[in-house]
Amino acid sequence: MWHIDEPALERIEIGAGILGTGGGGNPYLGRLMAREQLRAGRRITVVPPDAVPDDALVTSVGGMGAPVISIERPPRGDEYQHALRALEAHIGRAFTHIVPGEIGGSNSTRPLLAAAQTGLPVIDGDGMGRAFPELQMCTFMMEGIPATPAALADYNGYTVIFDRATDPRVLERYARAVTIQMGGAAGYAFPVMTGAELKRTVIPRTITLAHDLGGAVLDARATHGDPVAAVLDVMGGIRLFTGKITDVERRLVGGFARGEVSIAGSGPDEGGQLRIDFQNENLIARDGDGRVRAVVPDLICIVDQETAAPITTEVLRYGLRVAVLGIPAPGQLRTESALRFIGPAAFGYEDVAYEPIPGAYGAGAARAR
Amino acid sequence: MWHIDEPALERIEIGAGILGTGGGGNPYLGRLMAREQLRAGRRITVVPPDAVPDDALVTSVGGMGAPVISIERPPRGDEYQHALRALEAHIGRAFTHIVPGEIGGSNSTRPLLAAAQTGLPVIDGDGMGRAFPELQMCTFMMEGIPATPAALADYNGYTVIFDRATDPRVLERYARAVTIQMGGAAGYAFPVMTGAELKRTVIPRTITLAHDLGGAVLDARATHGDPVAAVLDVMGGIRLFTGKITDVERRLVGGFARGEVSIAGSGPDEGGQLRIDFQNENLIARDGDGRVRAVVPDLICIVDQETAAPITTEVLRYGLRVAVLGIPAPGQLRTESALRFIGPAAFGYEDVAYEPIPGAYGAGAARAR
Repeated sequence: MWHIDEPALERIEIGAGILGTGGGGNPYLGRLMAREQLRAGRRITVVPPDAVPDDALVTSVGGMGAPVISIERPPRGDEYQHALRALEAHIGRAFTHIVPGEIGGSNSTRPLLAAAQTGLPVIDGDGMGRAFPELQMCTFMMEGIPATPAALADYNGYTVIFDRATDPRVLERYARAVTIQMGGAAGYAFPVMTGAELKRTVIPRTITLAHDLGGAVLDARATHGDPVAAVLDVMGGIRLFTGKITDVERRLVGGFARGEVSIAGSGPDEGGQLRIDFQNENLIARDGDGRVRAVVPDLICIVDQETAAPITTEVLRYGLRVAVLGIPAPGQLRTESALRFIGPAAFGYEDVAYEPIPGAYGAGAARAR
Repeated sequence: MWHIDEPALERIEIGAGILGTGGGGNPYLGRLMAREQLRAGRRITVVPPDAVPDDALVTSVGGMGAPVISIERPPRGDEYQHALRALEAHIGRAFTHIVPGEIGGSNSTRPLLAAAQTGLPVIDGDGMGRAFPELQMCTFMMEGIPATPAALADYNGYTVIFDRATDPRVLERYARAVTIQMGGAAGYAFPVMTGAELKRTVIPRTITLAHDLGGAVLDARATHGDPVAAVLDVMGGIRLFTGKITDVERRLVGGFARGEVSIAGSGPDEGGQLRIDFQNENLIARDGDGRVRAVVPDLICIVDQETAAPITTEVLRYGLRVAVLGIPAPGQLRTESALRFIGPAAFGYEDVAYEPIPGAYGAGAARAR
């Protein structure tokens, strides 16, 4: 068990930004809101999964919607808490723990905010080990936890409860449609899990991993080291490409930010080209010959060449000098059954075989605390 | 108090079809399902509003979605009951009565089906006195009953609860979006009212009115009288036009069936023309010079010239010989505050003033039983 303080929040923000693989939104705002809570004397307690009792009652909270929305209208900050309370009222029981649904991007810091607001401990782990665009794309759903009951809350405090739809794809469609009507962004709380179910399905220790990743990047910056190398040191994986962004196409489709980014090589990649497709998150990286260099569920992270600052899809623009990293997905995402949810075909790349990037997720992290 | 038997169901079906003003869907299927319930020994008890105790707990059930959907995929018949039970579970109390939300079209017989299934009495009245395309367009909402909590249930038994959104326009948007994802049709249960609130807001005796209207039409048919005149005898109002349909344009927009129908005059209207716009229901009738002959909230009913069989917007087609009737709206829909919800401007006809058709809704009905 440990407590997240202000420096830890900053490290988590940086680590979670990188793990967002271009999407998941920016964790900055959630960090600021969580920091306000800390300054008001509230605490954020992190407990490892194996410290969670079997009969604990756990849910996940976060935001649903295209990240670009939160730039135009930031959340109020109480959407996640409202969703959690609405779900509690619906089931007639109180939650004992919060677990992040996705450690990548903005949904890393929102559960910390809700934990501070509610006083509930947050579990060190998540359901993705990264970010994904759709809510069924998490280990909880892949392992058969029922998707509902689930709750959404909007900016005005209006709530919507979904029930009896055990298929997460149905929840995804229904909740996405409501989220669009809610102005493109909503707080969610789902699923309802026991502690035993959580322990069976969670990707463990990913808050600590994000924290350590952010810490390694900050250390490398402070010591004039190589922050990009520091990312690979902690996470495992390879540098796919180095270059300059030459083109970005973006469109908002059905509540998702979809698009492509093209990068012209520099340094060792001079003369080469890399094109990355994204749907909120980066999905596939192909070189100039169309050869696949990396594909979901492996993490494709675009970071600043010098600082390793994560570059999310909504801030991609011509001229940015970037490094593209390919990081092995957590083992739980690489199984045959998981790939049906989050492999290339689940994103419409029917003809692309999943070739895992060698190595293990977070291989270089000091995973104990 | 009276019980609806099979002949009464048939009369209600015909009357409600006419009161549907072209929309609201076809009450036929709901009648068949309710008839099955009667044949299985269940009862449908109708109570007048003034017999409802002040502390009764009332909700309305029916179907949401474009009527054309139910032709392609009929409802199962338990959607309305499922929505009601989900709403009960959410509020933690049991309903004592059901009231129809709209007496026009398919939502006239669905509450009767749910009444038979649940054993709850149905209140003789409704919130529209006709049909309208959006759920905020009822007297319950116009008079300030909170729109939520509200429930939807789909074909598969999946349920969605909306809460804390007191503005019915918000519920309309959220519920409509979910309904589209539910395949275009859903059962609803809303609002939650006390008996006192019901009595203050309901348009009374409209089940009886639909019944008597249908009975008058059937009598006229059986006695070789004039069924179209029989409609006007019961309902009040005027014959706007007689002719042959020459053109129908239809499109499905945002879950609504929108379009226009053109009618070329015959008999006394020879040489004339009438054009009617609809959004599920008929909204405005204009002659060849563009002059408004009738407009919402007054009822514009297209019926067969000979039989007075209602012709709903989804079965409009070239060559049908029709009479178009203009029937005065219930007084509760004609007030200045009601017109903000269901007057011409609420449907986008900003420049059209509401000129009431002379007379009173249901003026010729024997309103006592």
